[in-house]
Amino acid sequence: MPHLVLIRHGQSQWNLENRFTGWWDVDLTDKGIEEAKAAGVLMREKGIDHDLCFTSVQKRAIRTLYIAQREMERLWLPVEKDWRLNERHYGGLTGLNKAETADRHGDEQVHIWRRSFDTPPPPMEAGSKYDLSADRRYEGIDIPQTESLKDTIARVLPYWEERIAPALREGKRVLISAHGNSLRALVKHLSAIPDDEITGLEIPTGQPIVYDLADDLSARDRYYLSER
Amino acid sequence: MPHLVLIRHGQSQWNLENRFTGWWDVDLTDKGIEEAKAAGVLMREKGIDHDLCFTSVQKRAIRTLYIAQREMERLWLPVEKDWRLNERHYGGLTGLNKAETADRHGDEQVHIWRRSFDTPPPPMEAGSKYDLSADRRYEGIDIPQTESLKDTIARVLPYWEERIAPALREGKRVLISAHGNSLRALVKHLSAIPDDEITGLEIPTGQPIVYDLADDLSARDRYYLSER
Repeated sequence: MPHLVLIRHGQSQWNLENRFTGWWDVDLTDKGIEEAKAAGVLMREKGIDHDLCFTSVQKRAIRTLYIAQREMERLWLPVEKDWRLNERHYGGLTGLNKAETADRHGDEQVHIWRRSFDTPPPPMEAGSKYDLSADRRYEGIDIPQTESLKDTIARVLPYWEERIAPALREGKRVLISAHGNSLRALVKHLSAIPDDEITGLEIPTGQPIVYDLADDLSARDRYYLSER
Repeated sequence: MPHLVLIRHGQSQWNLENRFTGWWDVDLTDKGIEEAKAAGVLMREKGIDHDLCFTSVQKRAIRTLYIAQREMERLWLPVEKDWRLNERHYGGLTGLNKAETADRHGDEQVHIWRRSFDTPPPPMEAGSKYDLSADRRYEGIDIPQTESLKDTIARVLPYWEERIAPALREGKRVLISAHGNSLRALVKHLSAIPDDEITGLEIPTGQPIVYDLADDLSARDRYYLSER
């Protein structure tokens, strides 16, 4: 039975400061490190194991994976990193905290951007200090200037189909360490969650989510490992 | 010009205790962690950068790579791990410290095993607690029971030719985090060091060694980054 574990990175500095992060490469806090360790210990104690791991090119997800793997004695497993597992790109909201965003755009508009399925925030302004178009890690990639959740899904799912689903079909046990919205994309797909419900689905940091999948990779069961 | 950096892992617990380690998966000491950090800082400060990284499946080399990459803001780079970059397998000496080995086998014999190019130590005994034949990471691999340096070279070089040299020929800048003897294998090959000299070449822990290579991957220059 194909076996998949999803984990959202531990708390980052900008989670703590309540700032829109998106593609900005913010590091884990000490609490985030502890969450990643605890996730690794939990997986080890519950006898969860993997053959192949996937993560984004953002350090908060990569470090969460590495810290958990160290606890599991699985640092030697192959890891594939890809930008398509990155967090949703928050465009012009990147770097703003909730209060700043509300001051600038109004509470109602912020709520729409947070919770709408297909309305992207305003694009990143030219010359923004958060502009990543010169970052070598995204060379050759058409970096989005902003993304709705729908846009995020549109780049996560092709990667799933191309790289992750084939590994699961071969019987490999897969661990994915990623972000709130790239994981929402996967959960929406696997659990067939409607557009208007998925934006309300909270994915907690550092909590391994286990999927037992049928051979066609449809979800037979989805649960928090901490609850079993 | 193809550009290659080699780094031997930082001090491990068994380096500290002067025990033969080989394939046993010993972790870094606090000093080893500091050495790895310092290597990353040095590479960053000297403007050294990479496109692709290789390491063994042993945590002391993997963690050295990850710790250095974190200092370089390069955690997102692709990393390929392979057992063929593992340390030389020390067979029946695994786990023994220098004094125990000398008591058991005599100083002269120990010197031969350490310094001979093609004399392997005695094979690991059946049932040894250091036997890794049931370790999942080596599934499908004919694990050696012991290795001479010559044996180590015989599995490092095919990996070099198959995976690392093609990347360098494509113009990728490569970082290899590995072990005293797997790096000796590479240095012997690249710098054309004779059999009777290579066993005396000490490769210090945590010191980036830079190779400037000609297009045919012969060495034009080799130096410790800390000395330039």
